[in-house]
Amino acid sequence: MAEKIILTGDRPTGRLHVGHYVGSLKSRVELQNSGEYKRTMIMIADAQALTDNMENPEKVRQNIIEVALDYLSVGLDPQKTIIFVQSQIEQLCELSFYYMNLVTVARLQRNPTVKAEIQMRNFESSIPVGFFTYPISQAADITAFKATTVPVGEDQLPMIEQTREIVRKFNSVYKEVLVEPEALIPENEACLRLPGTDGKAKMSKSLGNCIYLSDTADEVRRKVMDMYTDPLHLKVSDPGHLEGNTVFTYLDAFSCKEHFERYLPEYNNLDELKAHYQKGGLGDMKVKRFLEAIIQEELEPVRKRRAEYEKDIYAVYDILKKGSEKARNIAAQTLSEVKSAMKINYFDDEALIASQAEKYKRED
Amino acid sequence: MAEKIILTGDRPTGRLHVGHYVGSLKSRVELQNSGEYKRTMIMIADAQALTDNMENPEKVRQNIIEVALDYLSVGLDPQKTIIFVQSQIEQLCELSFYYMNLVTVARLQRNPTVKAEIQMRNFESSIPVGFFTYPISQAADITAFKATTVPVGEDQLPMIEQTREIVRKFNSVYKEVLVEPEALIPENEACLRLPGTDGKAKMSKSLGNCIYLSDTADEVRRKVMDMYTDPLHLKVSDPGHLEGNTVFTYLDAFSCKEHFERYLPEYNNLDELKAHYQKGGLGDMKVKRFLEAIIQEELEPVRKRRAEYEKDIYAVYDILKKGSEKARNIAAQTLSEVKSAMKINYFDDEALIASQAEKYKRED
Repeated sequence: MAEKIILTGDRPTGRLHVGHYVGSLKSRVELQNSGEYKRTMIMIADAQALTDNMENPEKVRQNIIEVALDYLSVGLDPQKTIIFVQSQIEQLCELSFYYMNLVTVARLQRNPTVKAEIQMRNFESSIPVGFFTYPISQAADITAFKATTVPVGEDQLPMIEQTREIVRKFNSVYKEVLVEPEALIPENEACLRLPGTDGKAKMSKSLGNCIYLSDTADEVRRKVMDMYTDPLHLKVSDPGHLEGNTVFTYLDAFSCKEHFERYLPEYNNLDELKAHYQKGGLGDMKVKRFLEAIIQEELEPVRKRRAEYEKDIYAVYDILKKGSEKARNIAAQTLSEVKSAMKINYFDDEALIASQAEKYKRED
Repeated sequence: MAEKIILTGDRPTGRLHVGHYVGSLKSRVELQNSGEYKRTMIMIADAQALTDNMENPEKVRQNIIEVALDYLSVGLDPQKTIIFVQSQIEQLCELSFYYMNLVTVARLQRNPTVKAEIQMRNFESSIPVGFFTYPISQAADITAFKATTVPVGEDQLPMIEQTREIVRKFNSVYKEVLVEPEALIPENEACLRLPGTDGKAKMSKSLGNCIYLSDTADEVRRKVMDMYTDPLHLKVSDPGHLEGNTVFTYLDAFSCKEHFERYLPEYNNLDELKAHYQKGGLGDMKVKRFLEAIIQEELEPVRKRRAEYEKDIYAVYDILKKGSEKARNIAAQTLSEVKSAMKINYFDDEALIASQAEKYKRED
């Protein structure tokens, strides 16, 4: 495959936060603008979100526009990237349906990502079938658009492997139609699992420990100032600890050399700042103010773009609608190739009909 | 529901035989002509057949026309009954996809019909996911057409119950859209599981023990004459046994009082014939000739209609195509109601878009 196609996306179950930003959104914008890809596609995965929110569809429904605004705010550009809503691409269901015959129940049960997520959600024996089978649905998403490149975290690698297996199986049983995707793993590990501002491993709306892309400058300031640091670092002169110190974890993810030049010229880089903190004599407040300056610098243009888009919500829905139409056309083309390969387009299959007619003529 | 709708069908994995005829086809024609149903729909379940024939789609593909010819031959009338091909109704996949969120994996595992069929096919741990989830796909088939009445054998009752559960769940979570179906169980038990002509419980192409609806008169004669009877009944004068005696099992399913008047007037009914056989003095050949006369009488008009339809195979495909178009229109209407109830028609949802626009106006 000479021409590379990216597919990625998010479940619309809440507004996106800085964890999403450093973990994926920022690099998506870079990929979009790199010129290396024939096509970048970003999917708002509402149908996947429904697999474990079936009784609360309103949450999913309300968050589609939030995620769309977040995408547009960070610089995903509908002129360059197809932003679309999963449930509007009905062809994905049909692909899933047929791929389900290519995977065994035992194979799904072995999927470590599914195992982990089942545990995380306390599903145990009451896993919805749609949730259990979502690696297959994900294979439909990826293959419908013939994606070559899927940016994911390491924990999602088994999902990509499942897709690759389905592709190989389909292509060998029927015909070489589907494309085997590759995972694209982010380089900066600090960006992958940004903790909450309270130091807890997971950012969550209910814990109130997220900095959202849509937060105002004041909210960002307050959240950074309230951040969890080192509980043993009571006086400025005390030696400070870096491990589990959220402010430094965020600096690992956000800061670069230029930030020091601009906001903290007395240090050359993060290593020097860390060394001073560990030795003692560097106060949390100073580090927090530095982090705040960086995050504000990063979020300021995001906030500005968001304000512009918020003025015309109708236009944002229209972007999603048009993106979904484009995605649907691509998926329809793939589905048509899939069904031709499976030879289940009976009524368009003149050779089949003619051969049957011939057979009955001979039998007379 | 004042207006009753029937849905039923068969997997196109082979030609239909007299077991299908007495077990279901004959009563379908009666139901079609009864005037009691607003609509009768018969589905050629190719997509379901693919769930355990994914690597042999050609078998399924070639047998669609066979099953269609069998349907038309027995008197299913495309003017009265919608005969359609499952895979051509793409809406069924979308319904399945959403219903999968309403059923747990544990619930599927408890389904006795699925358990039994998994055992029958020696699948054990290598069950294809599509096969495991087919009770959900069947719920999509039934509800897409708002079927009120599903003719099935007793062994299929758990499948109907699964559909009823999905309907209740959907209607309570979302909105009263789907219709709870009732099973229609055949009255004559002898018709339900007609054995093979060799006395084996299951008719199967590979055992060569089926009388097909498409068999010639000569083939039918030969198969009846070769039928398994009572191995202890060596001389005509010997007492005969009825248990496991295929000829008598077939008579239970096929014969009626009028047949005696026409072909065997020395007996008033089947009970008298059985009594004589058990006492001794009645030869197998006489009983077989009687059975043959009955089956030939039943199959003669079927054979004639078949010969007519075989003359124009293009027209038969056209019947299936037109039936599939009708079925697709009905399913599309149901799917649209389902998606409205789920509120996932975002782009047509003016209230949603207006409320989001209003929300952002207020936030300014």
